[in-house]
Formats: sequence, C-alpha cells, structure tokens
Amino acid sequence: MSTDTSEPDTSQPDTPEPAAVVSAEQQAREAELTARVLASFDGTADPRLRQLMQAAVRHLHAFLREVRLSEDEWQQGIEFLTAAGHITDERRQEFILLSDTLGASMQTIAINNEAYADATEATVFGPFFVEDAPLVQLGGDIAGGAKGQPCWVEGTVLDTGGKPVPGARIEVWEADEDGRYDLQYDDDRRAGRGHLFSADDGSYRFWAVTPTPYPIPYDGPVGKMLEATGRSPMRASHLHFMVSAEGLRTLVTHIFVRGDDRLESDSVFGVKESLVRDFAEQAAGTPTPDGRDLGDATWSRVRFDIVLAPGGA
Amino acid sequence: MSTDTSEPDTSQPDTPEPAAVVSAEQQAREAELTARVLASFDGTADPRLRQLMQAAVRHLHAFLREVRLSEDEWQQGIEFLTAAGHITDERRQEFILLSDTLGASMQTIAINNEAYADATEATVFGPFFVEDAPLVQLGGDIAGGAKGQPCWVEGTVLDTGGKPVPGARIEVWEADEDGRYDLQYDDDRRAGRGHLFSADDGSYRFWAVTPTPYPIPYDGPVGKMLEATGRSPMRASHLHFMVSAEGLRTLVTHIFVRGDDRLESDSVFGVKESLVRDFAEQAAGTPTPDGRDLGDATWSRVRFDIVLAPGGA
Repeated sequence: MSTDTSEPDTSQPDTPEPAAVVSAEQQAREAELTARVLASFDGTADPRLRQLMQAAVRHLHAFLREVRLSEDEWQQGIEFLTAAGHITDERRQEFILLSDTLGASMQTIAINNEAYADATEATVFGPFFVEDAPLVQLGGDIAGGAKGQPCWVEGTVLDTGGKPVPGARIEVWEADEDGRYDLQYDDDRRAGRGHLFSADDGSYRFWAVTPTPYPIPYDGPVGKMLEATGRSPMRASHLHFMVSAEGLRTLVTHIFVRGDDRLESDSVFGVKESLVRDFAEQAAGTPTPDGRDLGDATWSRVRFDIVLAPGGA
Repeated sequence: MSTDTSEPDTSQPDTPEPAAVVSAEQQAREAELTARVLASFDGTADPRLRQLMQAAVRHLHAFLREVRLSEDEWQQGIEFLTAAGHITDERRQEFILLSDTLGASMQTIAINNEAYADATEATVFGPFFVEDAPLVQLGGDIAGGAKGQPCWVEGTVLDTGGKPVPGARIEVWEADEDGRYDLQYDDDRRAGRGHLFSADDGSYRFWAVTPTPYPIPYDGPVGKMLEATGRSPMRASHLHFMVSAEGLRTLVTHIFVRGDDRLESDSVFGVKESLVRDFAEQAAGTPTPDGRDLGDATWSRVRFDIVLAPGGA
C-alpha cells in the first residue's frame, strides 16, 4: 500500500468523505442534493428497482463527494463510457471487461454463491461459454483440434455428504495454447470445449489441453485503464467448468494451474486458493491412463473432485 | 418515503450493508475480494488516478454488497450500459443524460462551484452550448427567429462587494417554444442564443423568448429508466447563462420561471430556489422598455442581477 497519508483509508469499504476540506454549509448543500435525487425515485412501483436505484445514487454521490471529482474528470468519465459503448459489439463486450477488471463480476459471483460447507467454490463465468458444445464420451477429448499440450482431467462429482453424483452434466471450456477460445477463431469451429456426464460412481475423465495464460482484450478503453494503472491484462491459466445435477446448486468455476506466476495478479480476480490444482507434468513416453498413444509428446494430468452444494433445479 | 421497513435508510448517504442477512464468514470473504481489487491499483503511478480508481472500486463494491445484486440484475446492468453506448453519437449523449438524471452532473457542479458569499449560484451546463453564438448588442434580440413569446431580460453584473462589472461576457442560450434548441433543428441555423457584454455600469439587457418546459430525449435506455421509476423527463423552463469577467469566477447557471409546476421535479435536478425569477407577463399593447413594437403580442420581462465570485482567469 502507498505511504501517502493524504489518501483515503482503502481498508474500509465505506469511508466517509474527508470532512476537513469541505465547509459544513457546503456539505449540507451536497447532502440536500443527494436527498432530492433519492426522493425522485420514491414513486418507483417495483420496490426492488427502487432499492437498486436509490442505493446506486447514494453510492455514486458518495464517490463524487469523497474524491471531489473535477469537471474535467467527469468529462473523462463520460468519454470512457462512450468509448466502451462504441467498441462493444456481438463479439466484444467492453462493459463486461470493465466489470471484470474492477472485480464487480467476481463480487457478484461471491454474493450469489455463498460458500456452503465443503462445496467447491465458484468463480467468474466469463464471456466464452456457448450452449452448443459437443457431447464427449467419458475419456474423450474436448480439444477438438485446439492446439496445446494434452492434459488428462479426472475426478468425481460428490454432494456435500460425500455421496457420488451420477449423471451430473459437466461443461468444460478453455483457450488454446495461443490464448484464444474457439469464439475468437475466424471460423465457426468448436474446439476446446465439450460436455459430458459423470458415471454411475460419480467419476468423470476427459482429455483437454494444459491451460496457459492469456490476456483479456486490451486494445480498448479497459486496456488503457489497465495500462494507466500499471495492471496486467493477463489471466492466470485456467480450465472452465459448469456442473449441474438435479437437486444440487449449479456450480460455475475454474481450476487454476499451481505454480502459474499469474495466480496473484489475475486480471479479473477469479483465483481462489481452493481452486488451484497440480497439473502434473508427464515426460514424453509416460504411459497414459487410457493407453492413448501420444508419441513423443509430453502431457499433464490433474485431479479435480467437484462437490456440489444442495439446492437448485 | 416508502413504509417498507426492509429497505435501507435512504436518508443516510453511506448506509453500510445490512449485516443481519449475511454471515460473518461471507462478509469477510467479500471484504477480502474488495481489498484484493483495491490493492491491484496500488501500483498506479498517478496518485490522483489511484485515488479515483480505488474510491470507485470501494463504492461500487459497497453498492453490490448492500443490495446483494443478483446475477440477472448484473446482466441487466451490462445491457443497459451497452444500449446507452449504442444510442450515443455526435448528436446524442446518453451517458450525459444518465449522469444528469442520477444527479451526478449537478453534484459535480456543486462540488466545483462552492457557494461564495452572495455570489449567484451555479447549475448544470447541459449539452446545448456552442462557442459560436452570435454577438448581440445591448438591447438586441437573441431569439434569431426562435419561436416563442418575446421576453425582455435585464440586470446588472456585480462582484460580491456590490461593485458593477463592466465588459463581462454574457452567453445566453435557450430552447424555443417547441422545446427545441437550434442544435436540434434540421439545419445549421443559430437561434435562441447569443453573447453580449455588460455596459460601463455593469448593466445588460436583451430580448429573448419566454422559457417553456421540454423533455430531455427519452427514447433510449435513460428514458426507459425514467418510465420504470415513475419519473418525468421534463425539465423546468429555464434560460441558460454563462458569465465571465477578468479576475472573477466564471458562472454557469440558469434562471427558472416562478410558478412553473416543473420546478419541484426538474429531471436533472438543476433548480435552486435562488435562481427562480418572476417572468412578469405583460398584456398585449403594454409599452416595451426600448419602444419595440410587438403588435398585439403579449410579452414578459424578468430581472436577473448576476453576482460573480472572486477568482478565476
């Protein structure tokens, strides 16, 4: 942390604005304006919408008042949002990148996926899931031509009582070794994704590629923000999972690669210690679990037991 | 105010999130995430940018945690910003409308234009000022063909010591009686705007049109937000002023029409009691101050003495 003592105390989530520099009369005037804006939403028919708008106004005004936003800075904020809007299209979502890089996506995940006993923790969904990933048999390969080191992934789906969950639907998706998802290819191929179902004993297994780090798109205003603040656009290497089973809470998560030096600086704050796994490197020629012949290629293997919380459809 | 006791107390600008419904462990997990995001900005070279980003994160996370934002609501937020981005172009600025209707523009004005003694108060600048408004002689007509009831505007520019300010540059602009500024016309005409200079005794006078209420553009996401929250897009009738003189603080303000029933519900929160003026209605045939013949038209007159604070270029 900085040693500049004039900064607000960032360890407090809701530090009030510094009172010293603003006269009581001026503070009263600003508070009166906030109250007037809040009151304008009193007539909102939907009580939840009213709550959301009034809370948004309260926090927005508290921000403006705390930092004493200048008119130039306000103008820069308008220009930032305008640029984000203009770069956003069907294949690029700058507002999600903004939410991700400010930790708002991950905080929303945290709020909606409270930890339950020993259930596996959730992390960000990301923008790269699609509904039509191919069905893969147990032991099959989800790479589908995606480039990368082969990686054997296995584990068991369990409930929090330790009981195996058969027939759980497991969606997996990942970037290739060039850091691109199939959605970022020039054609409509499906690669680096698939879905499969856990066996009668809850177990599952498939081939994928060993995850590698990649940057979130950084050629827009969010990239400029990261650069200006000395932050990296890189994500820690990860493999996405979404696991659902009747009567249990659907889990959206990743597993991360232990030893990846991006774990501490993941650009979207998705890393949780409990989700870091050993991707054990295997020398070329090491026999594979299913007898697959990988020639002179090295490969890796990882185990991920998935514990689903109760509840859900 | 609502009588629903489950709502946060909106009279407090910085109500902490309701602790009762969230376990201490979950609160700690959410606070830890916020701290991690804040720390990611520690390396920002520019201390002001660091302060702004960290404060924005703190207030954004406090909002998410207080309202327990659902994943659906997060998605709706992303869609709202996306739609605002896509409707914004050179002639339409939805993010400014959003800032205006959430009172953020007016709060920024308040922060940067602290009241000084008896100086005239500031209000929002709005999106309709242009640099090239025509020069109008004292007593001339700024309407330039804009439709509306003629209105005689006069006053004196003073400093806070009561001393007249000669040669002050007075920019004025307004919508016509159809509620449109010249920038909203189909051609490049200049109408309903001009600039003039105060006389040696600080006095000024000009013809304009009597201000009438008009809606901010409401065919986009901000309009939908106003509709969903039961708010009107209408602005209270007003005439814009920007007044500058050497050694005095430049004033951006409006005058409002006393009796206008939009004064209490101005959609951008621009109204201040001290800026409401009597626009005295004059029967047809009433002699005009400068002998101008208005035929059988009614007209109005208003007096606005402008007091500039010290400071500024």
